[in-house]
Amino acid sequence: MNDQWQQWIERLRGGDPRALARAISMVENREPGWSELLKALFPHSGHARILGLTGAPGSGKSTLVDQLAKHYRKENRMVGIVAVDPTSPYSGGAILGDRIRMQDHFTDPGIYIRSMATRGSLGGLARATADVSTVLDASGRDLIMIETVGVGQDEIDIVRLADITIVILVPGMGDDVQTIKAGIMEIADIFVINKCDREGAERVEREIRALESLATRSDHWVPPIVKTVASEGKGIAELAKTIAQYDSYLQKENLVLKRTIQNWRERLVEMLRDAMLEKAQAHLGDGEVGRYAAEVAEHKRDPYTLVEEIVGKVGRN
Amino acid sequence: MNDQWQQWIERLRGGDPRALARAISMVENREPGWSELLKALFPHSGHARILGLTGAPGSGKSTLVDQLAKHYRKENRMVGIVAVDPTSPYSGGAILGDRIRMQDHFTDPGIYIRSMATRGSLGGLARATADVSTVLDASGRDLIMIETVGVGQDEIDIVRLADITIVILVPGMGDDVQTIKAGIMEIADIFVINKCDREGAERVEREIRALESLATRSDHWVPPIVKTVASEGKGIAELAKTIAQYDSYLQKENLVLKRTIQNWRERLVEMLRDAMLEKAQAHLGDGEVGRYAAEVAEHKRDPYTLVEEIVGKVGRN
Repeated sequence: MNDQWQQWIERLRGGDPRALARAISMVENREPGWSELLKALFPHSGHARILGLTGAPGSGKSTLVDQLAKHYRKENRMVGIVAVDPTSPYSGGAILGDRIRMQDHFTDPGIYIRSMATRGSLGGLARATADVSTVLDASGRDLIMIETVGVGQDEIDIVRLADITIVILVPGMGDDVQTIKAGIMEIADIFVINKCDREGAERVEREIRALESLATRSDHWVPPIVKTVASEGKGIAELAKTIAQYDSYLQKENLVLKRTIQNWRERLVEMLRDAMLEKAQAHLGDGEVGRYAAEVAEHKRDPYTLVEEIVGKVGRN
Repeated sequence: MNDQWQQWIERLRGGDPRALARAISMVENREPGWSELLKALFPHSGHARILGLTGAPGSGKSTLVDQLAKHYRKENRMVGIVAVDPTSPYSGGAILGDRIRMQDHFTDPGIYIRSMATRGSLGGLARATADVSTVLDASGRDLIMIETVGVGQDEIDIVRLADITIVILVPGMGDDVQTIKAGIMEIADIFVINKCDREGAERVEREIRALESLATRSDHWVPPIVKTVASEGKGIAELAKTIAQYDSYLQKENLVLKRTIQNWRERLVEMLRDAMLEKAQAHLGDGEVGRYAAEVAEHKRDPYTLVEEIVGKVGRN
């Protein structure tokens, strides 16, 4: 690694926003050098606590995250925000939202916000989000908040990277939305009922309690419910307190390391899967996959035997 | 392959429901022999047209699929249904729904229904669904309908396997649901507005038209909108006609093969990714991933270098 790299990494570790922005882009877009950069930054990561926040569109997630960020800034803690936005290419929501939100905190280098859009490739976004968190972590953040719209398996995989997972619900969104979120309910360490001044807040609370009575958690934690009106800043201090309580619980019960090991077990398998695919692809010529696909589509070849043959060749020469 | 296998495969090809059920279970659960079975069945597949149907929970998807199935049965066409249900482990929705729906068609061997639940692993469900379709295809189905709740990337990947993709919307589900479905709107070949007797059907139609005016499809097809009340059987014949029209269009423009090739290009890469991971895992000892995860979590090792080392070893010995 040359001097320029070293200088860049030092600036990044000092929290310089430009150095950080460049590093995140490199990692997110898998530009040449991305893995060298992560290798260099990894030893400087591990300090930040990672919060995952998820909720349906319209649940006021971004407002809540912004308010939490302001709260932590008053305590002088360095904050990073990764907003994962699976909106369609039509809307370009991620980039627009990014700009609007950045203006609010523009003058404060203690908050860094980054939006990421959904990629087409399977699993790609969860991994990219994890890698971006590592970069933010190495830049001296005390807290990293990963927010995502909780609508599918991808989003579940993303929030599972977090040390502490917060699920945001709102009254009056109907049964359909609660159905969508069924898979996400189970990963909540803390529930937030946002816009709790709306009618139906108690019903949502009862529904959460009913779900909780069915579940058994290996860590014996009963996820508390915090009520907020994020747009007015109500309940934010209590939410921060509840987060701190769960954090203490994790530390007391020695669960932080256990959870981190579990996360790395899954991440390593994903990394291995991607790296092995790359290895196989290096053995394939230009356009070879396309030719194979045509042969399979025309039923000239069976894909199961074909894949075995390709895999068998890898590493032999 | 021994005689018993041959007999089994012959029974399956003849449409025997028990032979089919056993084969699907073997493939879905990756029981020993699953890939041999797929190799044997692949040459007998390729006859069925595959419809993908997706819609939010509550859109009446299953009712619509059942009605379509009945319609096709009147034309004496053999039908297979794969219902992919990403409900949480709490509800056990997939298995329950399966039993209820099977009763309706219990006496008709011309309809075979199979539910599949979401797996934890990334990409696993889309692949399993594709493999199950191949088995159904080999059992002499004319039509296979894959239905899934359209809430995330997984579900988009599942319906992308289809030759023809149908997106089901309903009036009055609010903007939030339409936002969730943004990524799915773009893959629709045909839109269905189900429960079209409800207020707001015209608004949904206008929204679809507005989206369509923004999009450009490489095949120049403008997705038609069909209005149905599936619970009363209204609009089903028109939907079947519209499906047949798009099918004719695909054939006339020679697009079926093009689309099948594109699908196989993606499927082959996914198959290769999984198979390469297996190859790497065969090089890892019992509990080795867990030990590595612990070392990474304790920051004794950097995961990026670690994965490179593992990949480098594969195939060498």
